[in-house]
This record gives sequence, structure tokens and C-alpha cells, in this order.
Amino acid sequence: MLYNFGEESSVSTDEFYMKQALKEAQIAFDADEVPVGAVVVCRNRVIARAHNLTERLNDVTAHAEMQVITAAASFLGGKYLDECVLYVTLEPCVMCSGALQWAQVGKIVFGAFDPKRGFSRMIPSPLHPKTEYVGGVLENECGQLIKDFFKKKR
Amino acid sequence: MLYNFGEESSVSTDEFYMKQALKEAQIAFDADEVPVGAVVVCRNRVIARAHNLTERLNDVTAHAEMQVITAAASFLGGKYLDECVLYVTLEPCVMCSGALQWAQVGKIVFGAFDPKRGFSRMIPSPLHPKTEYVGGVLENECGQLIKDFFKKKR
Repeated sequence: MLYNFGEESSVSTDEFYMKQALKEAQIAFDADEVPVGAVVVCRNRVIARAHNLTERLNDVTAHAEMQVITAAASFLGGKYLDECVLYVTLEPCVMCSGALQWAQVGKIVFGAFDPKRGFSRMIPSPLHPKTEYVGGVLENECGQLIKDFFKKKR
Repeated sequence: MLYNFGEESSVSTDEFYMKQALKEAQIAFDADEVPVGAVVVCRNRVIARAHNLTERLNDVTAHAEMQVITAAASFLGGKYLDECVLYVTLEPCVMCSGALQWAQVGKIVFGAFDPKRGFSRMIPSPLHPKTEYVGGVLENECGQLIKDFFKKKR
């Protein structure tokens, strides 16, 4: 399926794709997983989508980003995602940002900030020097889902 | 198989397990993968072993550590490796150290240092506060295998 909005990364385009990531996060929420979702977009096309599966897979490495990187590389038939944009509902953690560095992803767009676990507090930056990033896209919706999840857990 | 050396993490014990990790690294070398190997030891027993498979799996996330964490958790039936020691022939990268933080691994023993990609240059430390680590165990052997690999590639 093609979503052609002309130039990528305008505000409306970012929100459109973040809503796709939010759909994945909602699937995680409904499955009692920490609700984080991600999609990878390449040339205005969603080529991979995933959500957190750490509980189901009993695997701390099964974050949405890790799975979507693997799925996108499998789709493209190459390891590098330099022509891709990753949309994820929560600021990537150190593990995921390290994976995104290896994948040389072109751009990261995230929703809610994660001051405690997010990569942006790390020095030096764990990202590839060519990777751009922007945070706060649909921040409230992305963050609210996570807050609701932990409220339900208490 | 049980390897009972009494107290874990003495020099001879560390070298014994690092040799097991080196065997995995050699398998990677022979398969034309960047030669890094890892084992997870729990109560003097190797419960998981893995080597780098990024080329074969076409997946930047397929580092030895990522796979050995998943395998060890699967063996134990729980996500956390707080009673385990990870032996790896190269200082873990940012991605792998982030994964080791989520796994709350008890201790990390690595061989060669990686000043460019290793986790120890990061501030704040990406590791779990309770995780100990030591580097330089069989440093020369571990580093030589990697040097030989890149020399062969040139």
C-alpha cells in the first residue's frame, strides 16, 4: 500500500505514520505488553510494523524497534535502513538506539520522551552521525497509552 | 555438563569460560562473520552459547550477546539473568550493553577492549547498577582473531 504525501517528514506526514505506530502500541496494550509500537517507512511506504513482545516472547530484547529493524531489513533484503524513517511511540532506549546506529537508519521520529531510559541523555550520542531525529510527535497520545498501562498494572 | 571450579570469577575460571566464548568466535570466523563469541554461565554451568550472525541472518541486531541473552532466558524460563555471568570475546557495543541492562545480568567478563564502539565510554553507564564487569580476559587471543579477520578482508 502506498501513502504518497509528497515530501516525507512534514508535520501531517509524521502524524499519519505515528498513528500507524500507535495502532501497533494499542495491540501491545491489549496483549498486556508495555504499549510501544513502531513502523518503518521507506519511500512513503510502510515496509514493517511491530510492537513490544517482551512478555510473550519472554525476551528483554523483543522491543518494538528491534523487531521492526529486523523485519524491515528482511523486506529490503539488505541490512541498512539509511533510506528509511523509523516511527516509534516512545523515545528509543539505549539498546534500540544502538541497533538503529548499526542499521544506519536515516531518521527517527518518536512520540513520548523517556527521560529515564531514552537515548538522548547519553554522551556521546549512540546514533549514527547521519541519523536525524525528532521527538514529541503525538506525544500526548503516545504517552497516555503508557500511563494508562502502568495505572492498570498498579 | 557441570564445570565446578568452586568460586566463580577467579582468573582461571574466567579464562576457562573465555576459551568457550573463543570457540564460538572461531566458528564465526570460519563462517566469514566478524568473529565474536559469547557464553552465559549460571552456577558454574554454560547454559547458552552463540556467535555473531549478522551476515548470515542479514540482521544488524544478530550480535553474539543478543542471541546468547535470548537463548539463556529461554533456557532459564525467565527474562532476567541476574544470577548469570556473560563471557564475550569483545567489549559489548551500546546495543548489547542496553540489552544486558534490561536482562539485569549479574556480571560481564569481556576479552578485547573496543575503544570506538564499546559501552564503557558512554556516560551515564548503560549497564544495570548491579552489574559488575571486567575486561581484558584473554585480551590478546580475543583481539587477534578480530585483527586476523579484518586483515583477511582487505
